[in-house]
Amino acid sequence: IQSKLPNVGTTIFTTMSQLAAQSGAINLSQGFPDFDGPQALREAVGRHVMAGHNQYAPMTGLPALREQVAAKIARSYGRQVDMDSEVTITPGATEAIFCAVQALVRPGDEVIVLDPCYDSYEPSVELAGGRCVHVPLALPDFSIDWQRLADAVGPRTRLIMLNSPHNPSGALISRAELDQLAALIRGFDIYLIADEVYEHLVYDGVCHASVLAHEELYARAYVVSSFGKTYHVTGWKTGYVVAPPLLSAELRKAHQFVTFCGITPLQWALADYMAAYPEHVDELPAFYQAKRDLFCDRLAESRFTFTRAAGTYFQLADYSAIRPDLDDVAMAEWLTREHGVACIPISVFYQQPPADLRLVRFCFAKREETLRQAADRLYGV
Amino acid sequence: IQSKLPNVGTTIFTTMSQLAAQSGAINLSQGFPDFDGPQALREAVGRHVMAGHNQYAPMTGLPALREQVAAKIARSYGRQVDMDSEVTITPGATEAIFCAVQALVRPGDEVIVLDPCYDSYEPSVELAGGRCVHVPLALPDFSIDWQRLADAVGPRTRLIMLNSPHNPSGALISRAELDQLAALIRGFDIYLIADEVYEHLVYDGVCHASVLAHEELYARAYVVSSFGKTYHVTGWKTGYVVAPPLLSAELRKAHQFVTFCGITPLQWALADYMAAYPEHVDELPAFYQAKRDLFCDRLAESRFTFTRAAGTYFQLADYSAIRPDLDDVAMAEWLTREHGVACIPISVFYQQPPADLRLVRFCFAKREETLRQAADRLYGV
Ligand SMILES: CSCCC(=O)C(=O)O
Ligand SMILES: CSCCC(=O)C(=O)O
Repeated sequence: IQSKLPNVGTTIFTTMSQLAAQSGAINLSQGFPDFDGPQALREAVGRHVMAGHNQYAPMTGLPALREQVAAKIARSYGRQVDMDSEVTITPGATEAIFCAVQALVRPGDEVIVLDPCYDSYEPSVELAGGRCVHVPLALPDFSIDWQRLADAVGPRTRLIMLNSPHNPSGALISRAELDQLAALIRGFDIYLIADEVYEHLVYDGVCHASVLAHEELYARAYVVSSFGKTYHVTGWKTGYVVAPPLLSAELRKAHQFVTFCGITPLQWALADYMAAYPEHVDELPAFYQAKRDLFCDRLAESRFTFTRAAGTYFQLADYSAIRPDLDDVAMAEWLTREHGVACIPISVFYQQPPADLRLVRFCFAKREETLRQAADRLYGV
Repeated sequence: IQSKLPNVGTTIFTTMSQLAAQSGAINLSQGFPDFDGPQALREAVGRHVMAGHNQYAPMTGLPALREQVAAKIARSYGRQVDMDSEVTITPGATEAIFCAVQALVRPGDEVIVLDPCYDSYEPSVELAGGRCVHVPLALPDFSIDWQRLADAVGPRTRLIMLNSPHNPSGALISRAELDQLAALIRGFDIYLIADEVYEHLVYDGVCHASVLAHEELYARAYVVSSFGKTYHVTGWKTGYVVAPPLLSAELRKAHQFVTFCGITPLQWALADYMAAYPEHVDELPAFYQAKRDLFCDRLAESRFTFTRAAGTYFQLADYSAIRPDLDDVAMAEWLTREHGVACIPISVFYQQPPADLRLVRFCFAKREETLRQAADRLYGV
């Protein structure tokens, strides 16, 4: 059989998590917490499973959960979205992104992605018959290179994929940059997917500039988020997408035949928990900033160099002073095998990685002791 | 925005379930049980959620669950499948079918579907850039019309979608028919998707002829099943697909970017339950046959006419003697509104419904009292 996706291999997350397990390394590679979601949230699952909430959810998502999402958006971004026509619950943010791409991209369309970018974007575009145009973010701060972005926009551009807070760099897109983007695409028939799954993980008092809070951009956007990231339960595969009614209707056409609906008892549990603990999202920045700083304070003593992540639960680190001879894939493997700390090379998220890229990504969604132990090992490198 | 799926509306399942709710009708439309999954299975979910099984599952599925699936296949069909290279756990059978189609179908390819067929097949094919060729099953028994099927096979045929036990008719494909199919496509580069989500719901002592038990067909097949149907938990969105290693590898390329993985705590719970209660699947025929017969024994006194379903949890019924003036969509609405029993019209599963089709579908995955009450109402029609 000839492959429809000849360029797709095993994702780096699977590869590195497996290598970590084999090597007995501390796994700071694939992004997931090594601690658990809130007890009240987990208890709610058992309750709903026993109470008989085990059959199909509505295709668009449980009303009680869509209501909580709309309420949270109102609180966090001051936007009133209509829970029925604008909010769709999906089995994970990956599915939301996939369906949004299927809804928008036609054969021959071009999709602009900002490298380094999440590894699901390009195969999603390819399965829709489109083509990715890769625009690298400017180094060292992973900001948008406006000249290159403007040059990439053309008559076939259908969609631009945004990701803020940005995985793997932790960089944030500012409100001013959203304005600049709006000016750039004004008058063009171009849509946006805003991957904001780390929306609540922003540090140092900075606010996340959500596309939800940007009138002009929201009118042509799918905004994607993830309960897994926000509530420390990545294995629940529950996310959502918010978009204006017409865009939501098109996404739902794909969604209802890709998976049909999300997971019923988990949606109930999330709805209960969000209603009871609306402050959860407001406590996340301090919670994760403490982890970032614990890890970074120790890493600062090592030979790695870095700027602290502005958002996400990922910290990049430059290893030029340690093993400039190794590319980042080799470095990640070496750190995993020889020093017992698994991480993610970031060149795999580029179409054309910068030649002198010497950065690896560490996930700091870990318990204090895990972070201490990992940082101790990295100090020794 | 111009629609990528202009022919897609709200699925009939959503429409009829909503109408049932509005009308206060007994809902025998959308296929889901009104009773719950086994208590031990549900208790296991709470246990695993509290035990910290809440982060990403492996992309291919939890090993413990893949092992149980392989063991069940060995017991039920005498085939040894390799749990690592042939079994993939998915967030629902719909996703499995979608990914299998994406793995196989290239722009311009033709896919043969046997009408009436499940409503996700055609949009899945269209999103892959393929085209469905519709071959109606022979009436009144919904068997394969071999002449029409042979006529439909051509140089662009890439894939044939099979569904046995068949939704909505309950018909089974026999082992002899599988042999005939093998003879028909021998020498062609044609693949199969065998939608066997009702594999364990077969009645009257007949055995399900699975493609898994057919050496020659399995070599080119994706075989899809659903824990939701087998364990009465349709809202858990957990299914699986079994295919030879090369086909599985191609499906996983799509799967890892469509949803990435299934739901962790539910996979753990299913693995526990399957290990503890392997007999569950063997008890299902008697369990559901009793429901079918309870419903049918009463319906036999009414003016509906029917042959008892050989499989699935759906019963077709002909209403020619009642309202021959109504098409089946109008009949389903009328029964729902005026007689308080919601059902599914089957013309919606055809490209070109037979002009004289007077059949509606009732779901009998319901408690005895629900079935009694519904049958009483239908008796009065
Ligand atoms: C779906 S596994 C990848 C998790 C993740 O988002 C990351 O590590 O970047
Ligand atoms: C995904 S909702 C449809 C359930 C079902 O398979 C049916 O009713 O036929």
